[in-house]
Amino acid sequence: MNTKLNNERGFSNKEFEKRLIQAQKIMHNYQLDGILLTTPQNIRYFTGYDSQFWESPTRPWFVVVPLSGKPIAIVPEIGESEFQKTWLDEIKSWPSPRPEDEGITLLKSTLENIKKTFGQIGAEFGKEMTIRMPVRDLFKLKETVNINLVDGSDAIWDIRMIKTEEEIKRIKFICSIASDAYNSLPSKLAIGDTEREAVNKLKIDILNRGADSVPFMPGISGVGGVSQIVCGPTNRTLNDGDILFIDTGSTFDGYFCDFDRNFAFGKASSEVEKVYEVLWQATEIGINAAIPGATTFDIFNAMNKVISEVSIAGNNVGRLGHGLGLQLTEPPSHRDEDKTVIKENMVLTIEPGLEYAPGKMIVHEENIIINKDGAELITKRAPKEIPIIK
Amino acid sequence: MNTKLNNERGFSNKEFEKRLIQAQKIMHNYQLDGILLTTPQNIRYFTGYDSQFWESPTRPWFVVVPLSGKPIAIVPEIGESEFQKTWLDEIKSWPSPRPEDEGITLLKSTLENIKKTFGQIGAEFGKEMTIRMPVRDLFKLKETVNINLVDGSDAIWDIRMIKTEEEIKRIKFICSIASDAYNSLPSKLAIGDTEREAVNKLKIDILNRGADSVPFMPGISGVGGVSQIVCGPTNRTLNDGDILFIDTGSTFDGYFCDFDRNFAFGKASSEVEKVYEVLWQATEIGINAAIPGATTFDIFNAMNKVISEVSIAGNNVGRLGHGLGLQLTEPPSHRDEDKTVIKENMVLTIEPGLEYAPGKMIVHEENIIINKDGAELITKRAPKEIPIIK
Repeated sequence: MNTKLNNERGFSNKEFEKRLIQAQKIMHNYQLDGILLTTPQNIRYFTGYDSQFWESPTRPWFVVVPLSGKPIAIVPEIGESEFQKTWLDEIKSWPSPRPEDEGITLLKSTLENIKKTFGQIGAEFGKEMTIRMPVRDLFKLKETVNINLVDGSDAIWDIRMIKTEEEIKRIKFICSIASDAYNSLPSKLAIGDTEREAVNKLKIDILNRGADSVPFMPGISGVGGVSQIVCGPTNRTLNDGDILFIDTGSTFDGYFCDFDRNFAFGKASSEVEKVYEVLWQATEIGINAAIPGATTFDIFNAMNKVISEVSIAGNNVGRLGHGLGLQLTEPPSHRDEDKTVIKENMVLTIEPGLEYAPGKMIVHEENIIINKDGAELITKRAPKEIPIIK
Repeated sequence: MNTKLNNERGFSNKEFEKRLIQAQKIMHNYQLDGILLTTPQNIRYFTGYDSQFWESPTRPWFVVVPLSGKPIAIVPEIGESEFQKTWLDEIKSWPSPRPEDEGITLLKSTLENIKKTFGQIGAEFGKEMTIRMPVRDLFKLKETVNINLVDGSDAIWDIRMIKTEEEIKRIKFICSIASDAYNSLPSKLAIGDTEREAVNKLKIDILNRGADSVPFMPGISGVGGVSQIVCGPTNRTLNDGDILFIDTGSTFDGYFCDFDRNFAFGKASSEVEKVYEVLWQATEIGINAAIPGATTFDIFNAMNKVISEVSIAGNNVGRLGHGLGLQLTEPPSHRDEDKTVIKENMVLTIEPGLEYAPGKMIVHEENIIINKDGAELITKRAPKEIPIIK
């Protein structure tokens, strides 16, 4: 384990300055005088503020990133002392909860004092985003503030899609922790375990190895494959002929891994063996297709060719991988309608899957970063043959 | 441990029917032809759908609860097979991700087919709520759909604020698990531990005792008290004279507990002992004030009198407790501007705190349910004197 990294959290001011400079360049391209942020990951990206309190929906939090100068925080009083420790200079707060004016007057005056060059502020209005404040308050703000609030999602995703060296370090670290835990899991599993027990063994191992949290760990089983990959575990007992699918989004210092593994109980049918092998090969091909200059469609297409030879049914996931970082899933998507150009320092999942018979789906997944010359695998590759638990 | 409950998850169709009947009564009072739901807890409340996939922001999910008839689900294909297992009859889906039409056409036609009596649909627009879909899509929907989308948050909170017997069972169970884990924690702690180590010990114990997840567990320490209660743990080492504050929102079958405990390392100063005792008494008084017919203001006031005798500084939390259920924090709030009437089967936290010197805050918290005659404590009461870790 990288114990040095394990004992550190957070980023230097220099890292935040670097992110801000890059963001302001992109904001300039999109003609935005600022961006308004309300969600945990966007706020953390620009300020470093980490809190467990996002679990409470009672209070909204706001950060405004102007076209020049440092971000400004407008936060409930409960968060003020901790925000004072960030690299920000300007932190405003109000006594919250106060639904009758939940920070809106303060936010409005902050936005009105932003220097107006283009006359518009980008907000989290678009794809793969939601805005974390009461919409009722957003409507009121939008109507009364003296600057246009527009969709800033393209700009925000442009900013976050290319990772810094420090971000990549953390994603690599959590991928390595989860890989080791997956690799030691077969020795802990046995026929007769429940899905829930299997998942808990992996979860506790990942925490013990130094992950900060395991917010995502579906575990699903079925004879020869699974019908879905997002709900569960249940108390279903793992029996001879079952496939157990486990996926995990575990985090370190805010950054996610996102990859899965499959285990056969008792035996694997020849069909399962074949599908597993095809997906292993499709993953290989997907990794090799992920080079700077290619598009997400190219990656999709390369994998889809291999998969289509076995099954035309595809699967219900709707894509064959996606971006990864402060969120479990981020743009872009490897799918037929997404033509995002692959660039250096993107972090992506390669996730081919297929439903070879009704209710029998198998999905593989690995994580990569894009280097100058192509993809670098940052998960420890799934075994070429499906592990069999006796 | 209640092992029977521990082996079950989910609710009967009868439970959902009961919730629906009650909800439709409330919707009628608010003159709503339906309510539109997009967030995990609201969707789970009406359908039982449980998923880890809320962690992925890529796809929105919609449930429409009409004024008569069962809820209708409009969900991405990845969730369809699992939604088929719920008690719902009507499940529509679209191939997602598809940002160019992320379920909006399907949602619009569903809303347009709802029987119109009052001409308005309530949505998650108001207090302590956010809507989990791109606001860009919401604006488009609101402009083009042939029925008014209005703020339905008061109706939704009225529905969820009074818990059913089955909900209360689960909250009691998770409170009992977390209480036992807190009680066994002192024997696992020692001077020299870090905040992170202390938190991990408690977290793993709670998981081993049968909790489904521990999404909220801040752990903060400081000499004689803490400066805030929502961020952390860090790698700070616990030394002689420190107070360690740990809070947890752990879950079972979707339902939260939310209560904290304080531990002194080496020794407790006479000031700490006094403040701890005052807060213990304030908690007692808060519990006793929580009777049907009283208001949240009455509960606040009763506790605040005791606290004010020690300190006029108050604290930065902004209230002295709140509602609890499928979310860590729910309305109402025990504060001076909240006059919610306490009713049978509410579940509440009693959370007095005070900052007796700059940066030295101590906060107590217990969970209660409201019975016909008054509050029932469902956490195992914090010790009357602060535990000292040697």
